[in-house]
Amino acid sequence: MSSKPTIPKGTRDFSPEEMIKRDYIFDIIKQTFRLYGYQPVETPAMENLPTLLGKYGDEGDKLLFRILNSGDFLSGITDDELKKRESSAISSQICEKGLRYDLTVPFARYVVQHHHEIVFPFRRYQIQPVWRADRPQKGRYREFFQCDVDVIGSDSLLNEYELIRIINDIFRKLRISVLVKINNRKVLAGIAEIAGIADRLTDMTTAIDKIEKTGMKAAVDELLTKGIPEESIDKLQPVLNIRGKTEDTLHELEKVLSSSVSGLEGLSELKVLFGYIGTERLDCDIEFDLTLARGLNYYTGAIIEVQAKDSSIGSLCGGGRYDDLTGIFGLEGVSGVGVSFGADRIYDVLTDLGNMESQKYRGTEVLVLNFGDESLNYGLRLLTNLHELEISAEIYPDSARIRKQLSYADARKIPYVIIAGEDEMKHNSIMVKDMSTGEQKEIGFNDLASFFSG
Amino acid sequence: MSSKPTIPKGTRDFSPEEMIKRDYIFDIIKQTFRLYGYQPVETPAMENLPTLLGKYGDEGDKLLFRILNSGDFLSGITDDELKKRESSAISSQICEKGLRYDLTVPFARYVVQHHHEIVFPFRRYQIQPVWRADRPQKGRYREFFQCDVDVIGSDSLLNEYELIRIINDIFRKLRISVLVKINNRKVLAGIAEIAGIADRLTDMTTAIDKIEKTGMKAAVDELLTKGIPEESIDKLQPVLNIRGKTEDTLHELEKVLSSSVSGLEGLSELKVLFGYIGTERLDCDIEFDLTLARGLNYYTGAIIEVQAKDSSIGSLCGGGRYDDLTGIFGLEGVSGVGVSFGADRIYDVLTDLGNMESQKYRGTEVLVLNFGDESLNYGLRLLTNLHELEISAEIYPDSARIRKQLSYADARKIPYVIIAGEDEMKHNSIMVKDMSTGEQKEIGFNDLASFFSG
Repeated sequence: MSSKPTIPKGTRDFSPEEMIKRDYIFDIIKQTFRLYGYQPVETPAMENLPTLLGKYGDEGDKLLFRILNSGDFLSGITDDELKKRESSAISSQICEKGLRYDLTVPFARYVVQHHHEIVFPFRRYQIQPVWRADRPQKGRYREFFQCDVDVIGSDSLLNEYELIRIINDIFRKLRISVLVKINNRKVLAGIAEIAGIADRLTDMTTAIDKIEKTGMKAAVDELLTKGIPEESIDKLQPVLNIRGKTEDTLHELEKVLSSSVSGLEGLSELKVLFGYIGTERLDCDIEFDLTLARGLNYYTGAIIEVQAKDSSIGSLCGGGRYDDLTGIFGLEGVSGVGVSFGADRIYDVLTDLGNMESQKYRGTEVLVLNFGDESLNYGLRLLTNLHELEISAEIYPDSARIRKQLSYADARKIPYVIIAGEDEMKHNSIMVKDMSTGEQKEIGFNDLASFFSG
Repeated sequence: MSSKPTIPKGTRDFSPEEMIKRDYIFDIIKQTFRLYGYQPVETPAMENLPTLLGKYGDEGDKLLFRILNSGDFLSGITDDELKKRESSAISSQICEKGLRYDLTVPFARYVVQHHHEIVFPFRRYQIQPVWRADRPQKGRYREFFQCDVDVIGSDSLLNEYELIRIINDIFRKLRISVLVKINNRKVLAGIAEIAGIADRLTDMTTAIDKIEKTGMKAAVDELLTKGIPEESIDKLQPVLNIRGKTEDTLHELEKVLSSSVSGLEGLSELKVLFGYIGTERLDCDIEFDLTLARGLNYYTGAIIEVQAKDSSIGSLCGGGRYDDLTGIFGLEGVSGVGVSFGADRIYDVLTDLGNMESQKYRGTEVLVLNFGDESLNYGLRLLTNLHELEISAEIYPDSARIRKQLSYADARKIPYVIIAGEDEMKHNSIMVKDMSTGEQKEIGFNDLASFFSG
């Protein structure tokens, strides 16, 4: 293989410069999670396919990366089955495992599996990559990192409020102005009820989810295409057009939804949550958005989404409450709420905003030049001393020309170079060159600590 | 699906308690790498199969996890091909990608692909999981973490020495006594030459690699089985029996290998390396081991392996020099040397030794009790103050019975509980309960900072 190697479409290498900026983001997120008492867990990259299948809708099932069984993977399939060439049937016979698609389903699986070791309410965070066989495009990758934070085992709305505060703190520390949109699945269910399409909730939410992007007309067209009766749409439209301050909108909706138990329950939850939000001064803007639905089927209460105000890059964080998540794995009655931060999109926004300019890679502080003569041992001893002082330092591995060694220090942006040749060795001294000013200074071998701490 | 969910064989979940101990290991490794001037990179979990295939021998190819192509993966295969049921032929038609098997090959691919952005010599480290479809057993997992550190673009033996120092520092910080074994592939090649089996180097090294585990007799039997002539084995045995201090062994071998250019070159490299090692007092034991071969085919010079002295768990770290690694991707003449630390085995050894007892999960410091009455806002304000003081704190989300809230604090090992009910609110004070002593103390709302920093 002599042609230049490549990596799979939609995946990325991260260079040292990118790593330092990513770590900056992960550190802020992780520290905030821990400040609020969340505990880290990690789960394997692969899950058994039954754990994943059916959790993300038909579309999601198609986007799962499946792992071919080892060995003679065809042995369980008859010739007849093979001959039919039904990709999806065959794939479930030759693949038992898949790569995780998000962190929520593995977390639900974790909670059920380790149920007896967990103290509830369980606050956990998880920062790991996920994989989706999506069509790659700007801001959308096939391997990307999610940073999930969930509380499970409590249905108190204080949890929703806490997540809003975490969102607020993280984006404040990252210096990104954000708008937090909040809705409630029960309110959406109430609206569907009022419009007489309670059984078409998913179709309805999928359509209204698009109002913001494509406008009301496109949403109405989609509803029509899906066979929603015109009279239902007529009832929907004025409701979806309700605009204004959160307080007024909630008040308005209370009248419209007065006959829907579910709708009123959702409104009451929203009032409690916005009540909490009102008690403190937060940095982000927070509003009720009736058209926020998000694709995932498992939300049952609050729905949350965060957008950067100064960027068009889309959602940076989102989530909601799911009453039945562990139910799919046989553990009923455990309610949870959580959000997921998209580290890759946050990276893109921060890069666009220029907020990470100061996050330069701080690598080696000192390069010891290599003269390849008697002084080498002297240089090695020097290096050991630097490391004992916790100063990141390296020796140039070859006794190359000095000019070459200096240009390496330059290219690597190493601030100090130490010259410790035979002359210096005789004087038990070293010459320190400041690479930014070009200044050189001779100091005693034992003055290293004071020089570099000064 | 109502049966209890499971995870794939050979993979693991990590609980908060395990995560904190793993982070302890990763942090020591990472900080040491950085102290020596190594820079982080990351590569995708999946690589294109041509990048991986043929790099780990036939056995390695079988252990690769392959990812099924998305969509109609059977479309490129004819009925005739299907009918033949040749698993390996079909798998390469239906899978384009595989999970990375180690970090060395992806690193070689990275260097070739980003050649023009890299300053050589390039010191990089990489800490990521790898996947192998190996049969799981104690200490061997299908998903495990490698911590690789390599220098590429320099053939100086100072690099080998630097790696020994890194090994020394990391295991000293982890408080694991280790034995570092060093060999050189050129010496092995020299021995094969002397025994007249220069063309059977791989068979020879595979067999002698097992001497330590299964003894000389088993190694000889294996050589015979592989068709190595008895007279060659007769010549090998006395050489492999050479024992003693490194210096003496090297001296002894110099005589035996006097007619092999490669052998003498290897010996000379070992002498230089042990010369560097002799200049400084290191904590670990270091010895030349003629029977150390390690499986990997790509080593061309130094071979390094690290074993814990107080554990039978096997190799904790290993590596060597590879002159041709990027050559397989079309970039010739770039020599590299590196070692890989096995974080999972280090974890197991540290657990056996009890060295991580003090690495307890330090999570929430303070639990604010929830009385669900007027005092809730007071409690929320308190929580905000604690967070502003960077004190990890949470409020119990429900206004459950106090006994239940306290037993939650107990189970979570939260050291302090704050009682801030209506009485305290009236006095603008809070009651702090020390959960280890049971003592309670009333302090002013504004004395939080001094109480918790004191």
